[in-house]
Amino acid sequence: MEIMSDWIESGGALERTVEFPSFMDAVSFVNRVAELAEQENHHPDIALSYRKVTLRWTTHSAGGITDRDQELARRTDALVEAS
Amino acid sequence: MEIMSDWIESGGALERTVEFPSFMDAVSFVNRVAELAEQENHHPDIALSYRKVTLRWTTHSAGGITDRDQELARRTDALVEAS
Repeated sequence: MEIMSDWIESGGALERTVEFPSFMDAVSFVNRVAELAEQENHHPDIALSYRKVTLRWTTHSAGGITDRDQELARRTDALVEAS
Repeated sequence: MEIMSDWIESGGALERTVEFPSFMDAVSFVNRVAELAEQENHHPDIALSYRKVTLRWTTHSAGGITDRDQELARRTDALVEAS
């Protein structure tokens, strides 16, 4: 499985950290990711530390990264670019 | 320093995990905490894992937990109860 640039494989998840200009920009991004996650019924782990957001996409039932995680990671990238 | 019930001291931070009925309830709580954090200019680390939210209050400049963290933790509790 090819890991996209900006993403690393870490502990069985596809992980990316994005830094935003402000805390509230980071919060807005979390909300956009949450909306996508709810819509797709696939929820990443999200860590917010001031201006930084770390996302981890994994499929618990599969015990690791699936095509679905790759797809959602890609769609998350589009949300970063829209920020 | 007395640690409030529901909170533990972990790695120099005051930490609490709260589980909500749904993912979107957890997201709403994150937004309420974010609003408080921005207003007070004191930002906890926030981890969102499906229906669970973990908050960590610490003061980096002081290298640990301060009265301010205790105060904000207490105000966070009020936001949990308002959920």
